[in-house]
Amino acid sequence: MAAYDFAAARLYVEDGLAEGGEIEIRDDRANYLLNVLRLQAGEAILVFNGRDGEWRARLAQARKRAALLRLEARTRAQTGGPDVDYCFAPLKHARLDYLVQKAVEMGAARLSPVRTRRTQVARVNLERMRANVVEAAEQCGVLRLPTVEAERPLARLLAEWPAGRAMIVCDEGAPVADPLVALRALPRGAPVGLVVGPEGGFDPAERELLLSRGDAVRLSLGPRILRADTAAVAALALVQAAVGDWG
Amino acid sequence: MAAYDFAAARLYVEDGLAEGGEIEIRDDRANYLLNVLRLQAGEAILVFNGRDGEWRARLAQARKRAALLRLEARTRAQTGGPDVDYCFAPLKHARLDYLVQKAVEMGAARLSPVRTRRTQVARVNLERMRANVVEAAEQCGVLRLPTVEAERPLARLLAEWPAGRAMIVCDEGAPVADPLVALRALPRGAPVGLVVGPEGGFDPAERELLLSRGDAVRLSLGPRILRADTAAVAALALVQAAVGDWG
Repeated sequence: MAAYDFAAARLYVEDGLAEGGEIEIRDDRANYLLNVLRLQAGEAILVFNGRDGEWRARLAQARKRAALLRLEARTRAQTGGPDVDYCFAPLKHARLDYLVQKAVEMGAARLSPVRTRRTQVARVNLERMRANVVEAAEQCGVLRLPTVEAERPLARLLAEWPAGRAMIVCDEGAPVADPLVALRALPRGAPVGLVVGPEGGFDPAERELLLSRGDAVRLSLGPRILRADTAAVAALALVQAAVGDWG
Repeated sequence: MAAYDFAAARLYVEDGLAEGGEIEIRDDRANYLLNVLRLQAGEAILVFNGRDGEWRARLAQARKRAALLRLEARTRAQTGGPDVDYCFAPLKHARLDYLVQKAVEMGAARLSPVRTRRTQVARVNLERMRANVVEAAEQCGVLRLPTVEAERPLARLLAEWPAGRAMIVCDEGAPVADPLVALRALPRGAPVGLVVGPEGGFDPAERELLLSRGDAVRLSLGPRILRADTAAVAALALVQAAVGDWG
């Protein structure tokens, strides 16, 4: 892992990226580029779209509400990443923003909000989640952006669970046992889905539903209770180390 | 790990705790108890001091700037925890608060701020760090509070490194390799110190200094660059799972 320059300005775009190409940035994104990052004509920035790697682009023209970038050279090839779904009970505003940003850094492939009995928020704002995905990817140099799935009740998440995808459940009720032993049963690179409940945990009926699946891996995160955003990073670290692309 | 009630009001106190004892809470803490938590006479709260476990106490008397609590029964025995030092380059205000809170949840025994060339803050506020330790312990039910050490330059941290304490360095320059293999060399329960650099990483001379210690375990946290607070939780999760008390 090469040192990455957090200070480098990076911009997510939706256009395709290829040598010699030009991209027009409009409206809010142009405002961000010109008035927040204060990019001047002739200056370079890194751009990425989640598909074509990372490119160096130069500001060719700045107008009032639009900016024209000219692509120069690819600085990094597109990378994939491990097939890790992160299924979680949404939190309230700032803590959900944080949780989403952390899941991006930790390399999740998909973010699946799950409604549970003890979920604390009435409705999850998917647009805001997507904006946090983009912001975290811009800040941390992540080239593969996780997709944001619609919110589903827990029972539906389980009913629609894809065949062949291992389910890993962070279970506060599990006896404290070496989580690495539990994870070692899965082959590296296996498609997995990590399910983390709300603060206060799954309710008894939900736990029963989850644990009635004989193939679910129960993961204990130690003898202390973790906040949901801490559990996100801790569980993803163990999964990436044992099954994902940290090996 | 039994379900823990995040909603239960918990108060850190400095007094010794024993059956039938009384504790007078004054000033800011009394204000917190009476005006923030709004505890009414006769209502119960949990108290802990980091030494004598957790106790149920009832508000016996509320005065203007003081509250008298009467101890009823011990609800949890004092727990120790793994001997894990967390040595880190301090971050700016809110992100340092967050990092400290996360390290408490993750069960660190000691918090050691380390000055590095790329550390972004001029001076670390140890009182604020201690307040964050207390707040995180109150919120998350952690009974052993980590101690907060004075800030030291990296060279001094290394010169004063205790004999017999394994050093684990989060090294952005390390080749991506299974971090669990690196940690498996350490026996469970071994005293360890985890060293995490600033954002932007250690500078070349610092890395050389760190890696010149033949016994340092180099830990890679995968192919993506993590923010320092994310690296804190991820690295502590791996250490607790492989060496600490998650086993």
